[in-house]
Amino acid sequence: MSGYKRHIFVCTNQRSPDDPRGSCSKLGSEALHARFKQEAKRLDLKDVVRANKAGCLDHCAEGPSVVIYPEGVWYGAVTVGDVDEIFRSHVLGGQPVERLRLAHMR
Amino acid sequence: MSGYKRHIFVCTNQRSPDDPRGSCSKLGSEALHARFKQEAKRLDLKDVVRANKAGCLDHCAEGPSVVIYPEGVWYGAVTVGDVDEIFRSHVLGGQPVERLRLAHMR
Repeated sequence: MSGYKRHIFVCTNQRSPDDPRGSCSKLGSEALHARFKQEAKRLDLKDVVRANKAGCLDHCAEGPSVVIYPEGVWYGAVTVGDVDEIFRSHVLGGQPVERLRLAHMR
Repeated sequence: MSGYKRHIFVCTNQRSPDDPRGSCSKLGSEALHARFKQEAKRLDLKDVVRANKAGCLDHCAEGPSVVIYPEGVWYGAVTVGDVDEIFRSHVLGGQPVERLRLAHMR
C-alpha cells in the first residue's frame, strides 16, 4: 500500500467531568470512532481507509470533532448517525458533507 | 484560520508490556509528541502547525510512527533527535526527510 485514500481522525480527548471546556469524549466520540472503524471494516477498506483516535483537535466547544485527510476537511458536532453519509459522500465519493463542516476551518 | 499548514500525528498507542507486537508508546512516542508540540510553540506556529497524539497507526514494528498531512508522508523509528530536522525540512520547508520515511508507504 502507499498510504490511505482517506485518513479519518476522531478526537477522543477526555477531561474531568467538571471541566467547563467539556470534551469530545464526553460528547460520545468513542462510539463515533468505533462506528467509523466498523464501517471501514464492513466495506472491506482496511488498506484504503483508516479511522484513528486523536488527541485534542482544539475544537472542544464544537465537538465531537473529526478531520479527514488528505483534504483536511473539518467536521463538528458529528454523531454516529452521520457516519453513513460521511462515508458515502466524502470518504468514498470525495464530496465533503457541507452541513457538518466547521465554518471557520474552511 | 483555515486548517493547518501541517498536521502531525504521532502514534502513542500503548499495549501491555508482554505484548509481542510492542507499541509506539513503549518506544518513546509520548516524549516525541511532546517535542513536536514544544517546537511548534517555540516557533510560534500555534495556528499553522499542530502536533497530535494518535491511536495505533498500524506500523508497530517500525515505530515510533508519525504521519504528516496534507502530504500523507509516513515516518518510522523517529526519535526526539529527529524532530528538528523534520520541522526544518518538512514542516516548514515542504521537503520530507527521506531517510526516515517508511518505504512501503510511499
